[in-house]
Amino acid sequence: MNYERSNIKKMTGYTPGEQPDSAAIIKLNTNENPFPASPAVAAALATIRVDSLRRYPPPTALPLRTALAACHRVHADNIIVTNGGDELLRLAISTFVETSDAIAIANPSYSLYEVLAQAHGCGMIKLELRDDWSLPTDFGQQLNASGATMCLLVNPHAPSGQLTDSDELRQLAADFKGVLVIDEAYVDFVDPEQGHDCLPLIREFDNVLILRTFSKGYSLAGLRMAYGLAAGSLIAPMQHKTKDSYNTDFIAQTLARAAIESRAYAAETWAYVRRERTIMADSLQKMGFHSHPSQSNFLLVGVPSLFTAESLYEALKQRGILIRYFNQPRLRDKLRISLGTQTENARLIDALRDITGAGQGLRI
Amino acid sequence: MNYERSNIKKMTGYTPGEQPDSAAIIKLNTNENPFPASPAVAAALATIRVDSLRRYPPPTALPLRTALAACHRVHADNIIVTNGGDELLRLAISTFVETSDAIAIANPSYSLYEVLAQAHGCGMIKLELRDDWSLPTDFGQQLNASGATMCLLVNPHAPSGQLTDSDELRQLAADFKGVLVIDEAYVDFVDPEQGHDCLPLIREFDNVLILRTFSKGYSLAGLRMAYGLAAGSLIAPMQHKTKDSYNTDFIAQTLARAAIESRAYAAETWAYVRRERTIMADSLQKMGFHSHPSQSNFLLVGVPSLFTAESLYEALKQRGILIRYFNQPRLRDKLRISLGTQTENARLIDALRDITGAGQGLRI
Repeated sequence: MNYERSNIKKMTGYTPGEQPDSAAIIKLNTNENPFPASPAVAAALATIRVDSLRRYPPPTALPLRTALAACHRVHADNIIVTNGGDELLRLAISTFVETSDAIAIANPSYSLYEVLAQAHGCGMIKLELRDDWSLPTDFGQQLNASGATMCLLVNPHAPSGQLTDSDELRQLAADFKGVLVIDEAYVDFVDPEQGHDCLPLIREFDNVLILRTFSKGYSLAGLRMAYGLAAGSLIAPMQHKTKDSYNTDFIAQTLARAAIESRAYAAETWAYVRRERTIMADSLQKMGFHSHPSQSNFLLVGVPSLFTAESLYEALKQRGILIRYFNQPRLRDKLRISLGTQTENARLIDALRDITGAGQGLRI
Repeated sequence: MNYERSNIKKMTGYTPGEQPDSAAIIKLNTNENPFPASPAVAAALATIRVDSLRRYPPPTALPLRTALAACHRVHADNIIVTNGGDELLRLAISTFVETSDAIAIANPSYSLYEVLAQAHGCGMIKLELRDDWSLPTDFGQQLNASGATMCLLVNPHAPSGQLTDSDELRQLAADFKGVLVIDEAYVDFVDPEQGHDCLPLIREFDNVLILRTFSKGYSLAGLRMAYGLAAGSLIAPMQHKTKDSYNTDFIAQTLARAAIESRAYAAETWAYVRRERTIMADSLQKMGFHSHPSQSNFLLVGVPSLFTAESLYEALKQRGILIRYFNQPRLRDKLRISLGTQTENARLIDALRDITGAGQGLRI
């Protein structure tokens, strides 16, 4: 017998990016940081004894929240620590969205958002981004007219890398009657010259929830750690009512704290990725692949009309290089390429040059 | 403004047992194993390099599931690995219980169950256990009559330690029309002479989900690792639709695997706890405290009528010994005491003797 709820029965679930076992694969498909976490994180890991795991961890990760609060100059009550960004997104939905209501997204976007809505059993409203991946100027009005009670917005946008500036988001927070979740999974890679900073919004508005993660910027995707920043009134119900009692473990709390306290080290990797972003975009451009200006650690790359994105994705995969291909409207003629090390990026360029044969047609 | 869903607004959340920072506290309140995890787990921890954390972990923890499958002689598709038992309980509810339906429990029970029902927004039906903490003989019929579509049953029972045998559960699984979740958080401490084994039920029935955890038996409460065992049809929707994409981290998967592969070591701690269980029950009995026969790593202890359970709890706390007091019907004249090391247990007995003054009245 099938015991699934009706909404679960209907859905198919999220397909994570490929996670091959082989270290020989050049993996530019799920936006990991190309460098390991800081030596301070390694040192923290070396201090963990199994005896520390015998007891339950701090249920709300207070020592880590205190370190994060100092880093962001907010109060620990403005922070919830979660088992990866996925958990925070799920908590936000399950805490603030009635199943009879709907979530809105700017389409296309991170495909997990729709899966989370399906699993919750609420509606999903997709409002289209403009051709240049920017938000429609009347996005706040569109949101309110749609009746959505939550909006999930990834910024910098995935998969384009487009950055919406904080003034535009401030206006959106003021206009929108629901909860505005700003998923800043990639914010660490924004060029500092942009002066981008959405944190003041959590003081100005009680409906803004900012997501940050240790997965990309801090090279800890394997650790599953993220956090939310918001007004205390928005954090409290997730912290004390809906999150699992002990949602993050002792080791992850300890390592994440070391990561945030050695942030300067991680920042060097962000600068490296930004430099590679420029080099890679230039190299691709010379081969006829135009990439959208990105403020993230990936590039969304248009494929010259001679080729199909899918065939290039497959040809690269055959050469041991994984990138991301999305078979969906507006994206199926493009490829998303995570920025790796200089060597990895050069290997990708070489492989693409080899496959495309300087414009001589596809050679697989 | 309050953005909470109506069911979240109404609820108050779960109160975890106290988790004091001080190592000086004798902590017999949240049922941890008194000994650290095995040397094999410590060795596995020592092999982890931060570079392994740069990439996402295996999304469904397949290497660990394979090890668990070998241990339990089931297929990996019969297993879902979760971020602690809490996650599995929440997943079971959110996957199989419509918000218009209800969960049933045998009352009293683990207080988190009700909190999870509130957070999900479904109903909660409490069917009373008999005076000796056993299930009513017509429990299956009561469940069906109640209309509940899921039953959460902790076995051995908490907080009494009462064991329901597998034949009785087999009958229940056959009778009950909904999903029967058997929470075996404490099953490792059952006396092997009982020959207790519910695992065959997952082959016989497609509505039985068994919860196991590394928190107690394997001394890894700080790691947040548990797993569910069930028919593939019950596991699949949680595995592929409703769990967070990467719900357990690389370190936890690695350490849990080492723990299961060095199970013999953990089994020695279980035998130790069983010996202490007998000694502690005898010592308490001599002081007029009757404990219910327990198959778990705690004792539910009746307090002689001269004293109140709450005042004894407070007096022990003042002496640096934490145990659990439940201010609720049927339990407020009792104390739940986790079994610690010989030394810790002896300290508890000494303190109780001191406080109760050999029947001379309460001395705080």
